[in-house]
Parts: sequence; C-alpha cells; structure tokens
Amino acid sequence: MASEHETPTPSSSFDPSLPKRQSCSDCPFCSISSIYAPYDPQNPPDARSRIIDPNLPSPGPSTFIVLSTPQVMAFLDIMPLSVGHILVCPRNHRPKLTDASQVEAAELGRYLRVLSAAVVRATGIKDWNVVQNNGAAAAQVVPHLHFHIIPRPELRDKRSERFTATMFGRGQRDDLDEGEAVVLAEKIRQEVAKVVKEDQKQQNSSKL
Amino acid sequence: MASEHETPTPSSSFDPSLPKRQSCSDCPFCSISSIYAPYDPQNPPDARSRIIDPNLPSPGPSTFIVLSTPQVMAFLDIMPLSVGHILVCPRNHRPKLTDASQVEAAELGRYLRVLSAAVVRATGIKDWNVVQNNGAAAAQVVPHLHFHIIPRPELRDKRSERFTATMFGRGQRDDLDEGEAVVLAEKIRQEVAKVVKEDQKQQNSSKL
Repeated sequence: MASEHETPTPSSSFDPSLPKRQSCSDCPFCSISSIYAPYDPQNPPDARSRIIDPNLPSPGPSTFIVLSTPQVMAFLDIMPLSVGHILVCPRNHRPKLTDASQVEAAELGRYLRVLSAAVVRATGIKDWNVVQNNGAAAAQVVPHLHFHIIPRPELRDKRSERFTATMFGRGQRDDLDEGEAVVLAEKIRQEVAKVVKEDQKQQNSSKL
Repeated sequence: MASEHETPTPSSSFDPSLPKRQSCSDCPFCSISSIYAPYDPQNPPDARSRIIDPNLPSPGPSTFIVLSTPQVMAFLDIMPLSVGHILVCPRNHRPKLTDASQVEAAELGRYLRVLSAAVVRATGIKDWNVVQNNGAAAAQVVPHLHFHIIPRPELRDKRSERFTATMFGRGQRDDLDEGEAVVLAEKIRQEVAKVVKEDQKQQNSSKL
C-alpha cells in the first residue's frame, strides 16, 4: 500500500497545500490532476474561471471538473452512461483501491457521499450506482483508481437496458455533449458547495 | 443526511463503545448488526467463538462476519457472484449512501480499502469490483446501504460471463457453501487483522 506521511484524518476544512504528488506521465487522470489546481469546495470558482477551463487539457479531451481538493478530484465521464455520470479519483497515481493511502481511502469515502448528494440534486435523479473496477478482469480501463457515480433514471428505460451491457466494457456509450456539460458541471459544483456547507454547519452545531 | 455527534474522524484505534444506534426492525442488515457485537479488527475472535457464531441469526440465514466495528460491518454475501464476495455496510440503518453520516462515509471508504486487500490475499484473486446500488432503479435489493466487494477470477471464465447479467438483479446466483464459508471468513478476518496492523505500524513510523 502507499506510503503515507499523514495520520488518516480526512480534512474537514480546506487546506490548499498539495501533498507530495505521485504522478505517472502517460496516465490521463494524472494529466488532469497536474493541470487542475485544488480549490475550496465550499467556494468553487466561477464557471468562466481559468482554474476550471474545460479546454486546458488540449489536445486531450475537454475536462469538466466538479471537485478538486489536495487529495481527491472528480469530473464528468467523457462517455457517460447517463446524465450526471461522474468519476471520483485520488490526485495521486494509485492503480487499484488497495494502492490508496489510508487518508485517500477515507477522503474518497467522504466525497462519494458528498458527490452522490450533489449529483442527485443537480440531476433530479434519485437512484444511482457507485462502481469501482480493479484490474483488467474487473473491466478497469484507465489504470488510475476511480469510482463511477452513475445516476439511474428509470428501471425500464433504454439507458437502463443498456447499462449492464456497457458498464463493464462492452457495448456503446455516448460522447458527452460539451454545451450541456458546462451547465451540468457548474450545477454539480454549486451543489457540492451547499452539501459541504451543510455538513460543516452540522459539525459546528454538534460541537456546541 | 444523518445527524452526527462526532467529528468526521475515522478512528484509527479500536473503541468498542457503540454510538447510539439507528435500527429498523424488518431490515436483515439491522438484524445482523444487532446480533453481532463489535470486536477489535486487529484481534479477531477465534473461529469457534460465540461472538461470530454463523448460526446466531437463526432462523435467519447463517452469517459469516469478517469485520464488526462500532461503525462498520462486513460479512460474506449469502448468494455470492464469486468466491470472496462480501458486503460492507454501516451498523446504523441508512437506506442510501447519502443517508450516511460524515463519519460513516469516511469509515466505509477506509474499510473498503482494508477489506479489498484482505479479500485479495485470502482468495488469491487479484482483480475485483466494488459496487454500491442506491434505490430500486439502481437494483438495490436490501434497503440498507451496502457496498459489494466482488473478486473477478478471470476475464473469460463462466463466472465472468454471468457477472454483468446477475450483478444488477437478473439471472442466477449460487447459494453460499457453508463449510467453505467458515474457512473463508476466518481467512479474511485474519488478513484484515494483518492489514490493519501494517497500517498502524506505518502510521506510527510516520509520526516518529
């Protein structure tokens, strides 16, 4: 498992300092994590801010950031299975979940809940799957640990039928519509900010 | 989201005191969590100990505990998709991931990594999926938040072919062989203990 120089305590307040980063030059998610600096999830940058400009990875695919902390990043999947399909990963290059540090694992758990709530609010879709694949036999494509959060609109609509066939590497997935993506990512960032503020408020009131 | 009276700091040492529990009388996972007391993951009970007796839920199905902390429980799936298929859930009744407290979400993240490592070591299967379903449209069956950890033995074996058809509620799943389950659960508990001890050692050495 990863070497770790912090205690496994997920930070509840924002500290923009980056831990020493372990990167990998040909990994698309390491490329994203090197391009996009952390920002305070409670105060996300304006949609037109250069900090989250979707075109920065050029000539790589546009990237629509919905979370960027010193430990964890999240962005829209470029071939979504449904509207609101996002990926959540550690900033450091960790091939599998077992390669994550103790802090990263706890932070991923913390933000899976926050991002799930934000995606539900931003899309209005109340049901969703969380999926994380480790290794080729488990249909992992990008070898940098990532969780999928995938809204599931209805039990019997076309996207649902297609879901089981495509989740694990087979079948067709749509490309992301970039106009829609700009609006959706902004909505999710705003909802993340609200959820984190609510959490902070609850923590503060429980300390009184 | 759940009311929470602790700060969101996953405990790194074992504290057997149970937080005030939110339970639900007709939920099978609440039944398991009320029957099985927490134990220190670094010192799991002997396989014949009453604390983890698989038959305690009688007349309910036998339950093979692999982790039982004040916040999080894990046990073998009674209809596994592969050898080593386990479920990981909060002790409290939380229908969806968004219903978890901040502490529970971080603890789930922490133990998903620990349990994944333990399952890989206990089964020898290097690839696996982590899946968590929220709501009927996402194929959630038991309405108590749980993650699946599902080893994936090979890309093209029969279990793999069956996987995508059965993961989301369709198709056939085998019943757990109870003789094999006793041995497997013991192996996983032992591997969890090793992983947690290694983590503790690493934490201590990084503090020096």
